[in-house]
Amino acid sequence: MNSSNKKPVIACDMDEVVADVYDKFLKIYATTYNRVLKKEDYWGKKIYQIDGAIKLRDVLYDKGFFADLPVMKDSQEVLQELQEKYEIFFVSAAMEFSNSLVDKRNWAQQHFPFIPWKNIVLCGSKRIIRADYMIDDHPRNLVDFDGKGLLYTSSHNIDENRFTRVNNWQEVRDFFKNEE
Amino acid sequence: MNSSNKKPVIACDMDEVVADVYDKFLKIYATTYNRVLKKEDYWGKKIYQIDGAIKLRDVLYDKGFFADLPVMKDSQEVLQELQEKYEIFFVSAAMEFSNSLVDKRNWAQQHFPFIPWKNIVLCGSKRIIRADYMIDDHPRNLVDFDGKGLLYTSSHNIDENRFTRVNNWQEVRDFFKNEE
Repeated sequence: MNSSNKKPVIACDMDEVVADVYDKFLKIYATTYNRVLKKEDYWGKKIYQIDGAIKLRDVLYDKGFFADLPVMKDSQEVLQELQEKYEIFFVSAAMEFSNSLVDKRNWAQQHFPFIPWKNIVLCGSKRIIRADYMIDDHPRNLVDFDGKGLLYTSSHNIDENRFTRVNNWQEVRDFFKNEE
Repeated sequence: MNSSNKKPVIACDMDEVVADVYDKFLKIYATTYNRVLKKEDYWGKKIYQIDGAIKLRDVLYDKGFFADLPVMKDSQEVLQELQEKYEIFFVSAAMEFSNSLVDKRNWAQQHFPFIPWKNIVLCGSKRIIRADYMIDDHPRNLVDFDGKGLLYTSSHNIDENRFTRVNNWQEVRDFFKNEE
């Protein structure tokens, strides 16, 4: 991949890496169950894995769920910096949720206008992705990847220890500084 | 890719490989210009490259354009056969056209229900695709690919001679028989 004069490629996940899904889930949980969750209530799992909240996962199918997610702190600035030396692709497992497709495309274009539509991939399995680096919160995506995988910390992956972990976008920046 | 016990992967394009875009373009041309095109009128180019027809490309942005395309002859039967020995992914450059995303996902699920949604990829550049084989009508996608590329004949690629050419799905079947 890196043998030509092209830049090395970073495949960057969206949900829980550049898009803050938990922020929205916490608000929906608070409205649905009339209870504000604290970090210790959900840390270590997904919010819909909390007792009695399994139906909360259904909101992922709703039109608009992915349209207004907050942007993860520093992700815009760091990705724009990285673009000087790397080619950035957004690679998001979106195919389960029909309604998410156009929402995700538009969200990416709105908040990361410097990443062209040619560099957005909406998929299911990431087994088919070829890149030099992958930043993802799901260990299953990194297991099949044959480049360098970075595990972006999310509530559901805190016990995972097989991959280089990054806890925030400043740590992503630091990782790539050390790659130079 | 092929070092584990997993099946080798075929990345199969959609438009002009399993979905007949020309059939629909010809109908729209006939309605718009009140003229039925013959093969010699458009063979060697795209239909919207015919003099005066450039605005015809705009229909690609319309909601529903990709929803009711005819299925290419024998593609269902041959892909289902190939699935015994290969893992099939649909990989379609759809990201330019927001409205195409859900249409393409649903079309694939409707006509190829044996290919799971996890194996559908909607993207822009195919530089990021890792597979053992790619079947595509666009030489630009095969140039960057590091597996075996098959060029599926379409009106716009008839002068291309850098890749193994397949003219129909029986020839795809024959190619993979020879790979065994």
